[in-house]
Amino acid sequence: MNIRMVLKSLGIVIMFEGLCMIPSLLVSMIYHEDDAVSFVISILITAAAGLLLYKIPIRNSKFYERDGYAVVALSWIAISLFGAFPFIISNTVPSFIDAFFETVSGFTTTGSTILKEIESLPRGILFWRSFTNWLGGMGVLVLTLAVLPSVSAGSLHIMKAEATGPSAEKLVPKLGQTAKILYTIYTVMTCIQIILLLISGMPLFDSIVHAFASAGTGGFSNRNSSVGAYGNVYAEIIITLFTIMFGVNFGLYYRLIRGDAKGIFKDEEFRFYMGTILASVVLITINLYRNGLYSFGQSLRHSSFQVGTIITTTGFSTADFNLWPSFSKIILVILMLFGACAGSTGGGIKCMRILLLIKTARREIAGIIHPRAVHTIKVSNRVIGEDTVKGTLIYFFIYIMVFVVSTLLVSLNGKDLVTSATSVIATISNIGPGLGGVGPASNFSDFSAFSKLIFCFDMIAGRLEFLPMLILFSPMSWKKGSI
Amino acid sequence: MNIRMVLKSLGIVIMFEGLCMIPSLLVSMIYHEDDAVSFVISILITAAAGLLLYKIPIRNSKFYERDGYAVVALSWIAISLFGAFPFIISNTVPSFIDAFFETVSGFTTTGSTILKEIESLPRGILFWRSFTNWLGGMGVLVLTLAVLPSVSAGSLHIMKAEATGPSAEKLVPKLGQTAKILYTIYTVMTCIQIILLLISGMPLFDSIVHAFASAGTGGFSNRNSSVGAYGNVYAEIIITLFTIMFGVNFGLYYRLIRGDAKGIFKDEEFRFYMGTILASVVLITINLYRNGLYSFGQSLRHSSFQVGTIITTTGFSTADFNLWPSFSKIILVILMLFGACAGSTGGGIKCMRILLLIKTARREIAGIIHPRAVHTIKVSNRVIGEDTVKGTLIYFFIYIMVFVVSTLLVSLNGKDLVTSATSVIATISNIGPGLGGVGPASNFSDFSAFSKLIFCFDMIAGRLEFLPMLILFSPMSWKKGSI
Repeated sequence: MNIRMVLKSLGIVIMFEGLCMIPSLLVSMIYHEDDAVSFVISILITAAAGLLLYKIPIRNSKFYERDGYAVVALSWIAISLFGAFPFIISNTVPSFIDAFFETVSGFTTTGSTILKEIESLPRGILFWRSFTNWLGGMGVLVLTLAVLPSVSAGSLHIMKAEATGPSAEKLVPKLGQTAKILYTIYTVMTCIQIILLLISGMPLFDSIVHAFASAGTGGFSNRNSSVGAYGNVYAEIIITLFTIMFGVNFGLYYRLIRGDAKGIFKDEEFRFYMGTILASVVLITINLYRNGLYSFGQSLRHSSFQVGTIITTTGFSTADFNLWPSFSKIILVILMLFGACAGSTGGGIKCMRILLLIKTARREIAGIIHPRAVHTIKVSNRVIGEDTVKGTLIYFFIYIMVFVVSTLLVSLNGKDLVTSATSVIATISNIGPGLGGVGPASNFSDFSAFSKLIFCFDMIAGRLEFLPMLILFSPMSWKKGSI
Repeated sequence: MNIRMVLKSLGIVIMFEGLCMIPSLLVSMIYHEDDAVSFVISILITAAAGLLLYKIPIRNSKFYERDGYAVVALSWIAISLFGAFPFIISNTVPSFIDAFFETVSGFTTTGSTILKEIESLPRGILFWRSFTNWLGGMGVLVLTLAVLPSVSAGSLHIMKAEATGPSAEKLVPKLGQTAKILYTIYTVMTCIQIILLLISGMPLFDSIVHAFASAGTGGFSNRNSSVGAYGNVYAEIIITLFTIMFGVNFGLYYRLIRGDAKGIFKDEEFRFYMGTILASVVLITINLYRNGLYSFGQSLRHSSFQVGTIITTTGFSTADFNLWPSFSKIILVILMLFGACAGSTGGGIKCMRILLLIKTARREIAGIIHPRAVHTIKVSNRVIGEDTVKGTLIYFFIYIMVFVVSTLLVSLNGKDLVTSATSVIATISNIGPGLGGVGPASNFSDFSAFSKLIFCFDMIAGRLEFLPMLILFSPMSWKKGSI
């Protein structure tokens, strides 16, 4: 491993993070709050640490795929460590492990929280918390690449390791340009959502917070009872639509801008994603209504909001779905596994992979029924290479393996099976809330520090789709000769 | 599909099943019970139906792989239908769907029951119920092949479709001979267990029942509280050891007979299996003891018995593990997924596949760390072909997919998540009991008929490792031109 290059790249990302704390400092100054000083200190520490690493002299500039994975994994751990400083210094989250958990949860756009009481936090801190959701959405390194395209080495390997879905897509030949396009679309959509939320009657600060959390599909709210606190049906509709839009592959928006509107509806993953949302809303609405929980209108309202926020792995809530019937809950858990589209800001396995896996299983059966036919797998009329198919199958096994091992370790807390299992799914898939003791009405505060570390690992591993973290933590990487 | 050949092969199996009912008839005659007449009727119906199918004239003798899968899937459904007759006619299980469930559970060696009260059943019926466990263990078609080697066409395809594990192994060049060797080992081991149980103080009838259920890793007991009813520690030790032995690949016993004792301990799957058992017993013992549930001795006794009976997918019980701490319960659920060794009588994913999957995930990581090295996957020093690797990955996805879809459908019953999910795992992996409402102290009686049908599908699909049932139920198989 080219450790010097890895550390130098890390330095750039950390310096950039220091820069990203400035808006939060401004917010706390605007509201004349005491936490301004904690931002000044955090910015200085972060920028200095970043600069120190950046100054490391480089001996050779060879940058392998594994180095890209290492940079990405280490960057996400590092930004979460430095990002925790404002919480710790301002004493809003005094415990280090809790502050780290909250920051990991923010950057990975999970949205799980250890905070029991959110509304009393200073505005600057709340802004920083939400801003991590927004920054993490499209990928912190991709953002760095968009802003500072010239300084990053091995960008392709980095983008490959950070992008979501079975295969990273370049929109234009130049990577820096691709990153810029993605972030422009992302920023414009976020601004539109802020304006619409304002129009719906939500206060400005709350609109910004909820737009950040929707855009990154993170789900951090500044209200204890999340979006439910407003009882504002227009805001709910806006958030539902925008989270679903942020769960779409951003490549499709680029095609839309280029005038290819038809292309969106021909995209098989998009159709699968929308079909899953529609089917889930219908089934849950009927299930809730027939169980007499709500009126038909309320059933439709809650099911649409919850399906949108769960499949996109945002994790806002307007109702305590922990109290819903098993059938509805299991659909939500399935959506947690599915996640949003590849190349979106959402987490989970991704609709593209689920589609590929189903097609692969079908091909296995078809191969026996029609042994002489040639069977290739196509998605949106493009042939998918066998390497991608195999990689997807392996990804799926790793997802389940990490889920099972984490659940076992977390169960040492003595919580019931549903809480243990869904807290892990909620973190691996970067959702936020789970079921049982981590339902929408609860939080992650009373897990042990050990469990919280497991959750942090799972959130980053899930966000980076496992390989970067597994490579970083694999003993193989640290054997002599490999470094 | 060569339907005539498929039906003719089916006829042989059904006729053979009629033959297999005779011992139960004898038992009911020995005990002078009224159910003898129901066996006579069942035997006549079964034999006649089998003969009718067998008499179908054949037009061409081409027998494809898909035909093998169809024969196997149809045979298992058919023997479960005809095997339900004694229960229905004797009025011991008056509901057709319940009788079908009980027979499927028997043949697939699941051991889940819809009976609330077992001890009052007539001996002949109890014998038949246990005998289905024994018959299903090594595979009903393999048994037919062992007894009637000359009449079966397409034996290789059939054996491949019914055998367990990622690749069927022929011990000797001739298939009929292989089947005979397997059944001789199986029968001898069963007899030894009966004798040992007798010595331990168990009554003869009970010894036979429990040996049948251990051999097939089925788990049907003639006592309401299963093996726990005896409070006999020697019987428990014998059953623990024998279930674990029946969970070993029978190919290893053949090598043992041929004098290759070392080969067993060099076998990687065997080591993985024994290692998993050992680690699970240690972890659960400590967990139970530290939670103050039992004394250390009792913790060791219950954990050993439960680990042995669960990983082999037998499903006997001596303690209500539903009341154990989450950590122990999750280990048991992991063992339910793992299952026993390939080529054994046990169900589940099989240790061989888990081993292969872990090695495949490791290779994925190693491939990035050392991109220039050549990475083949070896088990017991033999290179595993990439087709087997891919097939195993696909099998794993199908397992999880069938699990998720079944859980969703079963949740319509309104039972809690743990009950819904573990009832499905318990049936797909052919265990017997699950957790929650299907724990060792409960049964499957109060599920809806629809759920019971799902369970029946899952039991057969799991036992046959999915492809035969998926092919049979795939619309692709029934399109014109395919048949």
